[in-house]
Amino acid sequence: MDIIVLKPGATEEELKRIVKKLEHRGLKANISKGTERTIVGVIGDTSKITEEEENAIRLMPGVEDVMRILKPYKLASRDFKSEDTTIDVMGQTIGGKKIQVIAGPCAVENKTMLMGIAEKVKDAGATFIRGGAFKPRTSPYSFQGLGEEGLKYLADVREKTGLPVVTELMDPRDIEVILKYADIIQIGARNMQNFRLLLEVGACNKPILLKRGLSATIKEWLMAAEYIMSKGNQNVILCERGIRTFETATRNTLDLSAVPVLKQLTHLPVIVDPSHAVGKLAYVAPMAKAAVAAGADGLLIEVHTNPEEALSDGEQSLKPDEFKKLMKELKPIAAAVGREI
Amino acid sequence: MDIIVLKPGATEEELKRIVKKLEHRGLKANISKGTERTIVGVIGDTSKITEEEENAIRLMPGVEDVMRILKPYKLASRDFKSEDTTIDVMGQTIGGKKIQVIAGPCAVENKTMLMGIAEKVKDAGATFIRGGAFKPRTSPYSFQGLGEEGLKYLADVREKTGLPVVTELMDPRDIEVILKYADIIQIGARNMQNFRLLLEVGACNKPILLKRGLSATIKEWLMAAEYIMSKGNQNVILCERGIRTFETATRNTLDLSAVPVLKQLTHLPVIVDPSHAVGKLAYVAPMAKAAVAAGADGLLIEVHTNPEEALSDGEQSLKPDEFKKLMKELKPIAAAVGREI
Amino acid sequence: MDIIVLKPGATEEELKRIVKKLEHRGLKANISKGTERTIVGVIGDTSKITEEEENAIRLMPGVEDVMRILKPYKLASRDFKSEDTTIDVMGQTIGGKKIQVIAGPCAVENKTMLMGIAEKVKDAGATFIRGGAFKPRTSPYSFQGLGEEGLKYLADVREKTGLPVVTELMDPRDIEVILKYADIIQIGARNMQNFRLLLEVGACNKPILLKRGLSATIKEWLMAAEYIMSKGNQNVILCERGIRTFETATRNTLDLSAVPVLKQLTHLPVIVDPSHAVGKLAYVAPMAKAAVAAGADGLLIEVHTNPEEALSDGEQSLKPDEFKKLMKELKPIAAAVGREI
Amino acid sequence: MDIIVLKPGATEEELKRIVKKLEHRGLKANISKGTERTIVGVIGDTSKITEEEENAIRLMPGVEDVMRILKPYKLASRDFKSEDTTIDVMGQTIGGKKIQVIAGPCAVENKTMLMGIAEKVKDAGATFIRGGAFKPRTSPYSFQGLGEEGLKYLADVREKTGLPVVTELMDPRDIEVILKYADIIQIGARNMQNFRLLLEVGACNKPILLKRGLSATIKEWLMAAEYIMSKGNQNVILCERGIRTFETATRNTLDLSAVPVLKQLTHLPVIVDPSHAVGKLAYVAPMAKAAVAAGADGLLIEVHTNPEEALSDGEQSLKPDEFKKLMKELKPIAAAVGREI
Repeated sequence: MDIIVLKPGATEEELKRIVKKLEHRGLKANISKGTERTIVGVIGDTSKITEEEENAIRLMPGVEDVMRILKPYKLASRDFKSEDTTIDVMGQTIGGKKIQVIAGPCAVENKTMLMGIAEKVKDAGATFIRGGAFKPRTSPYSFQGLGEEGLKYLADVREKTGLPVVTELMDPRDIEVILKYADIIQIGARNMQNFRLLLEVGACNKPILLKRGLSATIKEWLMAAEYIMSKGNQNVILCERGIRTFETATRNTLDLSAVPVLKQLTHLPVIVDPSHAVGKLAYVAPMAKAAVAAGADGLLIEVHTNPEEALSDGEQSLKPDEFKKLMKELKPIAAAVGREI
Repeated sequence: MDIIVLKPGATEEELKRIVKKLEHRGLKANISKGTERTIVGVIGDTSKITEEEENAIRLMPGVEDVMRILKPYKLASRDFKSEDTTIDVMGQTIGGKKIQVIAGPCAVENKTMLMGIAEKVKDAGATFIRGGAFKPRTSPYSFQGLGEEGLKYLADVREKTGLPVVTELMDPRDIEVILKYADIIQIGARNMQNFRLLLEVGACNKPILLKRGLSATIKEWLMAAEYIMSKGNQNVILCERGIRTFETATRNTLDLSAVPVLKQLTHLPVIVDPSHAVGKLAYVAPMAKAAVAAGADGLLIEVHTNPEEALSDGEQSLKPDEFKKLMKELKPIAAAVGREI
Repeated sequence: MDIIVLKPGATEEELKRIVKKLEHRGLKANISKGTERTIVGVIGDTSKITEEEENAIRLMPGVEDVMRILKPYKLASRDFKSEDTTIDVMGQTIGGKKIQVIAGPCAVENKTMLMGIAEKVKDAGATFIRGGAFKPRTSPYSFQGLGEEGLKYLADVREKTGLPVVTELMDPRDIEVILKYADIIQIGARNMQNFRLLLEVGACNKPILLKRGLSATIKEWLMAAEYIMSKGNQNVILCERGIRTFETATRNTLDLSAVPVLKQLTHLPVIVDPSHAVGKLAYVAPMAKAAVAAGADGLLIEVHTNPEEALSDGEQSLKPDEFKKLMKELKPIAAAVGREI
Repeated sequence: MDIIVLKPGATEEELKRIVKKLEHRGLKANISKGTERTIVGVIGDTSKITEEEENAIRLMPGVEDVMRILKPYKLASRDFKSEDTTIDVMGQTIGGKKIQVIAGPCAVENKTMLMGIAEKVKDAGATFIRGGAFKPRTSPYSFQGLGEEGLKYLADVREKTGLPVVTELMDPRDIEVILKYADIIQIGARNMQNFRLLLEVGACNKPILLKRGLSATIKEWLMAAEYIMSKGNQNVILCERGIRTFETATRNTLDLSAVPVLKQLTHLPVIVDPSHAVGKLAYVAPMAKAAVAAGADGLLIEVHTNPEEALSDGEQSLKPDEFKKLMKELKPIAAAVGREI
């Protein structure tokens, strides 16, 4: 259902042209003449009206504005699918009663370090291992990741610990090598609107962890999920990781209200990454607790055995014993909101 | 004209209650049933529906959303008054062909300094003198202004130079003393939604220069103007002075597109303060030129004979000779957009 | 300790002038010449350097930038007072182990309604009653509050229920009447930088609940607290209520990471108002839970017996039974973070 | 030159460890003990300290903060190259006295349409033709571009009109086909931090038009330019196209102050795209004028013969006669700032 608002002085002629245009597209017009504005309600299946056609109507003489009532995404919408989507990965269910915890270092640096972290986070209750083999770094002079070698280390960790692997895809040319090693493919915040990458992962059969863009609205984020889903892959996990605001005390502003908003708008699971959002160690644990209390289906937490030596984002990494303490503290909060961790 | 959008599963019973509620208020309902949503167009004089009544409808069972077509401000709107408002102050017309330039120091510091600046800016073409006697400072430990003494210096300057005085009102208790000395009363960015202050100046007979709040939308800004106008004072001058964004290279982000947007929405004059927005001397002149090119009716520029010794905002103040150079450079730009300066 | 960074080509002469200026103020210079920049460390008690003097140095020839190491606020800083401030109001301690809950309608509308709400929220565990008698409304055509009559109703409620009263002061001229009835004086988000109002409440002996401005950084918010404290009133309670971002799915973005950030920077108690931040009923309870998990010392929640008829902000008000359910659900979360509610 | 600020209670032992760490890296420490903080100035060539090493220092015991004095980009900085970079493309110089105007439709739709627009914009004074063959669209259901066919039409236009071609690269896999047809390769706002794409175009020998990301700071934007330049391609043109703020009256907020800021920080040419920033036809011309007045080296303007039928962004497209009028109006403004158009 679209609504067309006419300008104050719109003529009968202009109104007729609009009605005719709608009828041409098999739609009907319902005209309401108010004292200050005339509005046209569009009756029929408007979901097939493209953005281009909507724009064309907006530019017709006499038109002040066009409003869309229906959401621009469909497959991702709870209107389309009312029950929660759950995604099974090697026996772990994302979006179910259990809150899943993805832990690990920001970047894979070497095999021993990764294995050491993996064993410790598993022991503390983590259910997935994460680590970047290809790193999106804002400086060309920073460590860019180990590439396929890093992916192999992740696969070794999976074999030894049984933890499924979450790792980021940055370039469509890497999809085959990523598919060989990853259990969940992460799309980073900076690539949330890298539409070619979205289409690529939409055509694969692995679950996608889609991070929110730094300045993406929730609607745009769901449109990015729709991109992936439109190609057939329905297993999308949304990950809130902070948005950009004027505040500088934290790296970004973690938008936890996105959790209940998404729970209303979509059936997809929602997880939270407090580490990247806050950027400082001391704020990670309180925000992880808050995320669970707000209803998140999972957490993504950076853990490093030696944050001072980390080649990426050490400032926000928990040490394994801090992570263990946090996991313990999260249990009663999860229970309080009817979940397990 | 309001539009009420019903939830997908809204019942006939719920629809009936809504229609009844509207009829109770002397309005009629125009119902459009689409394939995915039913919408109700409200016919009649909806301008009298208060925000409270709108909220009440939004909370009725079966209602998904309520949309307002009409703007929430009226007196400030170009729908209400189509021709440009011009404001005459001691022979200078704000909002006419001539671009008015308000210049002077951020704070009035002493009489000699103020007189020196005033004579130089007048000589360079400024048409108003500005200076703060009451200063809104973010630190309680900073210079807070000279109070009435500063106002007297401004009046002395007016007497000697003929330049009308623009100065800020911060506290409703100061209105009488301000009225005694000011020709235009400035409401600062931090007070844009100090509603009591707005009502106070709405009841006085001096023009009001209303600065945009640091995070105010254009709509909220016009609502603030409406507050003033609703009390009888129609002489409101809008002053864009930068909004808060994530960018830190400038103090604020000067939103020059607000100028053409306002020219479409309102009949009130629009001026631009580049000094406070950018916060750095080197950026003031380019942005002053851009403001004139964008269609501003005036400029507010900080000038100080000795910026290094300024007690407030020296970093963004032009020296008199820099101001003179800028005024000269603005002339052909003003001419290019059909204006004078 | 201030740091002065020189421009790449700064001369010895320029450096000398800077050193001399510092010595004039009783400070010493420690010069470090790097390969690309020279920096001057300022030694001595720089806390007495005013903003004005800092600006003057910034504008000296050869200076590229001046950096402040010390925070611009002092009394509010944890450096100044390391232990948590607790505030006692009629036997309730804010900032202690118990999480305090301030509940009530946005605006006081009539006595019966207010009493009904107060009894129900008290029964559910609320420890303070709130209600606005003077309302900051963005439209001049909206309900502006009952004034002193509303304050009397609040006092009646206190007498009957024992709940202390929290209510907003908008205008320095109302301070006497507010002091007669309020136990805690609220400064609203739009007045966070109404410096005259801050000085006024700084001179009174009632605790102040200071809401964060819509676009205020945490640093500016603490500077506003400093304003109040500089006048003698040390009992300031900070209240996070959402900041303005590009996201439109919620009214504002509740910045819960402000809670752990503030806990590090200041000794003052921190509470959270989820109702105003999210603006929609369905998101209030999840965000209240998240606030407690993040370490908030209290909550401010809107409750109305009949949200559909509320004269202000009905959309975000919980009904008493919803509030009761929430209070029950908050208990185990409070316990999980070592608190009571 | 880096500065290390110690915590109030840092011990001599902690200070020694820091000094030792610096000496290990061939750097020297200059210690300033203030009354409230000790700071360590790092002397030597700190430009080789990686982000990783900086992080490691930040996490050492006793360290409160680390500040970088030098900019994180080098090749793009005016410190590195003081004179303006000019880029020659088929006889047109970008960054010189002449303001270059890139005009054309958002998307290439068909050959006749494109040729018609090209002839008209050339006639009006445009010096480059633009058009997208691969379109980044927020909806997977929108027109995605003609691909190589569209590029061929652009090449045909160049052959016939002599206008060099500007077109967007979205996917590293398309680089060869783009290189075959484009004279300037555009990197869109959503790909500003698609680091793989940046490295790819950094290795090619065509000029790159790098749009600012929707929420990118100027510093991050220059870091993105540095990515390209670090691979050898020094011909980067920066294009301001609006940033995301809370304002909704325009699609984005055109940050024109970025023009003078960039002119100070970098030697690279800076152009402005008012069309995408404002999103509405009526605001394009005023903002184009403002951009020229602010000192932009060029403009990127959308022109379409039939905006109502445009398959992308019709709402913001000028018709050829509107463009012609604008070009004429820009002439005296360009002259006023010492430029030609």
